[in-house]
Amino acid sequence: MKIYTRTGDKGKTRIIGNDVLYKSDKRIESYGSVDELNSLVGVIIANLSDKTAVFAPELTEIQQLLFDCGTDLAISQNDTKHEFIFTEDHKYADWLEKKIDEYSEKVPKIQKFILPGGSKTASSLHLARTVTRRAERNIVALLQEEPINDEVLKFINRLSDYFFAAARYANVLDGVDDIQYRNSKPVFR
Amino acid sequence: MKIYTRTGDKGKTRIIGNDVLYKSDKRIESYGSVDELNSLVGVIIANLSDKTAVFAPELTEIQQLLFDCGTDLAISQNDTKHEFIFTEDHKYADWLEKKIDEYSEKVPKIQKFILPGGSKTASSLHLARTVTRRAERNIVALLQEEPINDEVLKFINRLSDYFFAAARYANVLDGVDDIQYRNSKPVFR
Amino acid sequence: MKIYTRTGDKGKTRIIGNDVLYKSDKRIESYGSVDELNSLVGVIIANLSDKTAVFAPELTEIQQLLFDCGTDLAISQNDTKHEFIFTEDHKYADWLEKKIDEYSEKVPKIQKFILPGGSKTASSLHLARTVTRRAERNIVALLQEEPINDEVLKFINRLSDYFFAAARYANVLDGVDDIQYRNSKPVFR
Ligand code: B12
Ligand code: B12
Ligand code: B12
Ligand SMILES: C[C@H]1O[C@@H](n2cnc3c(N)ncnc32)[C@H](O)[C@@H]1O
Ligand SMILES: C[C@H]1O[C@@H](n2cnc3c(N)ncnc32)[C@H](O)[C@@H]1O
Ligand SMILES: C[C@H]1O[C@@H](n2cnc3c(N)ncnc32)[C@H](O)[C@@H]1O
Ligand SMILES: [Mg+2]
Ligand SMILES: [Mg+2]
Ligand SMILES: [Mg+2]
Repeated sequence: MKIYTRTGDKGKTRIIGNDVLYKSDKRIESYGSVDELNSLVGVIIANLSDKTAVFAPELTEIQQLLFDCGTDLAISQNDTKHEFIFTEDHKYADWLEKKIDEYSEKVPKIQKFILPGGSKTASSLHLARTVTRRAERNIVALLQEEPINDEVLKFINRLSDYFFAAARYANVLDGVDDIQYRNSKPVFR
Repeated sequence: MKIYTRTGDKGKTRIIGNDVLYKSDKRIESYGSVDELNSLVGVIIANLSDKTAVFAPELTEIQQLLFDCGTDLAISQNDTKHEFIFTEDHKYADWLEKKIDEYSEKVPKIQKFILPGGSKTASSLHLARTVTRRAERNIVALLQEEPINDEVLKFINRLSDYFFAAARYANVLDGVDDIQYRNSKPVFR
Repeated sequence: MKIYTRTGDKGKTRIIGNDVLYKSDKRIESYGSVDELNSLVGVIIANLSDKTAVFAPELTEIQQLLFDCGTDLAISQNDTKHEFIFTEDHKYADWLEKKIDEYSEKVPKIQKFILPGGSKTASSLHLARTVTRRAERNIVALLQEEPINDEVLKFINRLSDYFFAAARYANVLDGVDDIQYRNSKPVFR
């Protein structure tokens, strides 16, 4: 069968559980933005420097997990057949927290905001940080209308902090100093 | 004349047909996101690898067509002076379908979802796929309030499938294997 | 203290002035998209070509100013403690206008729209142009509900014109010709 089915040409589409929704529905916006984030992570992996190649396995793991998130977000609240993939006992957020702790020890302590940038890898991880937060905002917009899988939201929240820590560590690996935001108050405790 | 006219400094702007709208209007969101997609295609062209340089002419053609889409989306429903550029007899969606068929034959058959990634070119085409879908969602949001050119929506829907097929073909050209989503059911028939 | 506080795991967060809002609030969308733009500027700086390295200092200055914009957007309308950073007497928009005038003199005159693309640097500046306009749309959506700092909006409006002028100048520096949009009417006076 061809990948194009032409069924969505008038703006509606099917989700898991077979409800048909407008493509602009908040649910579709939510997993569409997770798909965009997933693709950006793919771009980052493809462009890692020699010194930051160490990130490849965990970024690929994050891609797998983002697909799980997307699947859970694509399940209709009326569907009874499919169970959420992302459950608390999987402890994916804990896995991210350990990485954050590890990287936070390897970077200079800061009290002020830093400009999102630095090496090629670091700057792209900052971009992923902000696209993660955009996906999070879309998931939160959905959550105000329909129940969602809480574990997905928790993972996505932690993921943006992971990207912040990873971006800073990438700058250490690539030998680039973070630039402080000049008007920053001390904000990190 | 200078390109900056300062007229939009308070948040309103003019569309084709001379209606003045808030910049946050769904219509402006729709062609603004087509412009963003167009710019991303520009980035992809500028970064093609030697092995994927073959995509350059068709991606440039897509940029021209995206400009046509944007123009049609920018026309007020009250305007009587301007005709849509994108009409059925132009068969742009057919042109994309032929490309999709061609590339689909050159890639390994799959039943499961794949991670959006691979080579530099492939991963960036996946990103374009998802930004196309974001533009599509914005066009669908507009369509729920005002009539739009159906042919534009059809083209944009097919375009994301084109980017999927092209991304997979780029991985073949660059000699990179797609990675399967490990929890995928068989989804492609 | 760790950067992850877990307090936002249910979808709410604090802004300057201590109001607690859903993360999908228009205010948070507005400074979140400014943060995304700021990160994209970081990516552009990290990838400048030798011939376009001249843009580095002013792009870094723009990152600092975008942080100021974000701060002003993050201040609650109910807050009485914090003053806006961005005030008219700082003349940041004037600074951008001078750059636009300077670059506009160094590029071929055009009457028609051009495809957003060209060299690596130029195409990425076009992408920043469109992400700036997305941020602008989000700020305008907020402005329809709550008062905002007008100077921020003016700066962001001018910034997208700056990116247009800079993209065209980058193509001159990198020796790439702009491609015209083939169906364009004469639109630039
Ligand atoms: C959710 C979803 C997505 C999500 C994935 C979730 C996430 N992580 O974000 C996203 C948005 C990423 C996505 C992307 C794409 N998707 Co999609 N997606 C779906 C959807 C809605 C559900 C798929 C799913 O997870 N099913 C899994 C389980 C939970 O579903 P199930 O009902 O229990 O069983 C399914 C399968 O097992 C299958 N099935 C049952 N028996 C059999 C037997 C055989 C032999 C086979 C092959 C299949 C099969 O059919 C059932 C229905 O899907 C389906 C449509 C639908 N309503 O099912 C489309 C669908 C699978 N997607 C489709 C397409 C084309 C794509 C894209 C190529 C679109 C694009 N241009 O970007 C990409 C490919 C992405 C990739 N990287 O590979 C098409 C496939 C058409 C085809 N040829 O079969 C479908 C069928 C939609 C359609 N157009 O009709 N998708
Ligand atoms: C739609 C639109 C866009 C869309 C394009 C559509 C798409 N594919 O998505 C998008 C969003 C991409 C866009 C982007 C930009 N745009 Co624009 N756009 C317009 C708009 C609303 C219509 C243009 C159009 O298609 N007209 C074509 C036909 C259908 O219009 P028309 O009414 O029949 O005739 C027009 C022209 O023929 C012209 N005209 C008539 N007689 C004559 C005679 C001469 C000698 C000339 C030169 C022109 C001229 O004036 C008429 C009115 O536009 C105009 C404003 C407006 N309301 O017209 C701005 C406008 C053309 N854009 C403008 C600008 C500045 C830009 C950007 C640089 C903004 C930015 N920073 O990103 C970019 C440049 C993009 C590029 N790649 O070149 C300015 C140009 C100012 C100037 N110096 O003249 C305008 C005039 C808006 C304004 N600020 O007042 N734009
Ligand atoms: C606005 C904001 C942002 C904006 C910045 C504004 C912009 N330009 O767009 C954006 C969205 C970019 C942002 C991003 C991030 N942020 Co932030 N942000 C805030 C927020 C809401 C206000 C910060 C601010 O500007 N304060 C400045 C002045 C105006 O505030 P103030 O009340 O007068 O005083 C503050 C400080 O002076 C401080 N303070 C007072 N006395 C003392 C004494 C000491 C010793 C210290 C260290 C601090 C301190 O506490 C006060 C309250 O913030 C705070 C939460 C909050 N409500 O304060 C989080 C906050 C600072 N952010 C936080 C985090 C984690 C981040 C990110 C890492 C998140 C991410 N994953 O992306 C990034 C880092 C970005 C970077 N590049 O460095 C955390 C820091 C946690 C910690 N360990 O301390 C905070 C506290 C939120 C939280 N989770 O509770 N943020
Ligand atoms: C660091 C600061 O960023 C804001 N914040 C928290 N989550 C998001 C998000 N998804 N998008 C944008 N901003 C966010 C809050 O104001 C927080 O305090
Ligand atoms: C492959 C699956 O992707 C979803 N889908 C269809 N169109 C879009 C879009 N523009 N954005 C995000 N998701 C979309 C539907 O659920 C479809 O079945
Ligand atoms: C050049 C044209 O772009 C449109 N325009 C103005 N501001 C924005 C924005 N933030 N996003 C998208 N489109 C915009 C108007 O229609 C203007 O005339
Ligand atoms: Mg958070
Ligand atoms: Mg589709
Ligand atoms: Mg403008």
